[in-house]
Amino acid sequence: MPHFPILPDLARAPVPGRVDFVGAGPGDPELLTLRALKALGRADVVIHDRLISPEILELARRDALVIDAGKEGFGPSTPQAEINRLIVAHARAGARVVRLKSGDPCIFGRLDEEIEAVEAAGLAYRIVPGISAAAAAAAGIGQSLTRRGRNGSVRLLTGHDVKGFADHDWRALARPGEVAAIYMAKRAARFLTGRLMMHGTAPDTPVTVVENASRPDERRLATTLAALPGALAAAALKGPAVILLGLAPRWAEAALPKVLEEIAL
Amino acid sequence: MPHFPILPDLARAPVPGRVDFVGAGPGDPELLTLRALKALGRADVVIHDRLISPEILELARRDALVIDAGKEGFGPSTPQAEINRLIVAHARAGARVVRLKSGDPCIFGRLDEEIEAVEAAGLAYRIVPGISAAAAAAAGIGQSLTRRGRNGSVRLLTGHDVKGFADHDWRALARPGEVAAIYMAKRAARFLTGRLMMHGTAPDTPVTVVENASRPDERRLATTLAALPGALAAAALKGPAVILLGLAPRWAEAALPKVLEEIAL
Repeated sequence: MPHFPILPDLARAPVPGRVDFVGAGPGDPELLTLRALKALGRADVVIHDRLISPEILELARRDALVIDAGKEGFGPSTPQAEINRLIVAHARAGARVVRLKSGDPCIFGRLDEEIEAVEAAGLAYRIVPGISAAAAAAAGIGQSLTRRGRNGSVRLLTGHDVKGFADHDWRALARPGEVAAIYMAKRAARFLTGRLMMHGTAPDTPVTVVENASRPDERRLATTLAALPGALAAAALKGPAVILLGLAPRWAEAALPKVLEEIAL
Repeated sequence: MPHFPILPDLARAPVPGRVDFVGAGPGDPELLTLRALKALGRADVVIHDRLISPEILELARRDALVIDAGKEGFGPSTPQAEINRLIVAHARAGARVVRLKSGDPCIFGRLDEEIEAVEAAGLAYRIVPGISAAAAAAAGIGQSLTRRGRNGSVRLLTGHDVKGFADHDWRALARPGEVAAIYMAKRAARFLTGRLMMHGTAPDTPVTVVENASRPDERRLATTLAALPGALAAAALKGPAVILLGLAPRWAEAALPKVLEEIAL
């Protein structure tokens, strides 16, 4: 008679925790992916950025622990090391952790630092991509980021990096027809404009600033490169904004928000 | 006594058609956005690209007219003018048309040409952004497209354009730490490699090719720039592929598909 080993009680085995790095998209809950929705509905712990809208956090389970990693309670900006520690501690304790980041976690999301912490702890993880702010901003003004015969490449870049205002290949960006989506650029706008014009970008190159892309309070500032710093100062945008260099709203009249009437363009 | 005008029977007024340009994401139905799912569920007519997976088309209404705009019936590649004509004709007839494009319609989706036709016909439209192949490919290899201290910008570019192999700012792309996602690059790989190395990209720069990103038949080829043309030739990829320049899979051993063992890297 064959010998059957006694199986351990699998139902009682400790469930290993895991981490899903989830892109929440730009803000409109309808721009979540189905996979992000599923991950949220299963999460025991949700650790989210400051910019995640309440409507999206509503989609977490009622009994989930929801931790704001960007606001008071952890100070105005939780240090990265503390966020890493939180993610690892909850997953080690067996929780299914969703680390919820606005937009696409792979674009300016400081994802690597968190993944490295999770890997060092030997925990399983997965990345769920999200709709980037650039994609939502372009869609909202009826424009494509690339166009046959105009630009065969598009650049996503940051206005400032660890060292301050970010340096880029200005000469390449200054070529006619170039399109770029610039993140975190409100404060850097004067610097960017100066660098681009110094390298030959035409002063009347269209520029559209999209604040709170996809949210009910989305605002669009249609301007030109030369007028960008003044337009931004006058508009006093408070939310996150993406600057679309080389693109104007397709519906020039209909799409311009009221703020434009108040600004001399 | 005031005069009340007799209101027309609004219920019987002809419903104007409309067009939603919808990003279907890279293939996995879970990477659809909730808005894309809603648009599909409401559409009277779905006009889709060749690369849309059957699981996604299943999400259309049973009674929707589903038109493949990329295969036989319209020839191996339906001319753009014919696709424009189809979209406009159905929307004019009062249909809610979903024009379903793989990935993000704003990135190498030839969206402008279709929007212009719809605008010229005076029809309402909307763009629903989607998860790009580049985002899904990066997420699948556990990498971020940007990283503090490494690259403050990422470029999405096409391997070929209307004039043939696409020309790009090779000098800028050749800088150490640069990351780019290259679309439609299988045939152009030898050209790209030559241009990049001529401009100083190190031959051992990591390159990952992701075929069928997010689909069950996803394959990943981890190689170097110098070995890219040979690796591509040996792998004989048949599906759509994105080349991630400057990125290697984070899990070097686990993530490499079997094909790598067959190729001398």
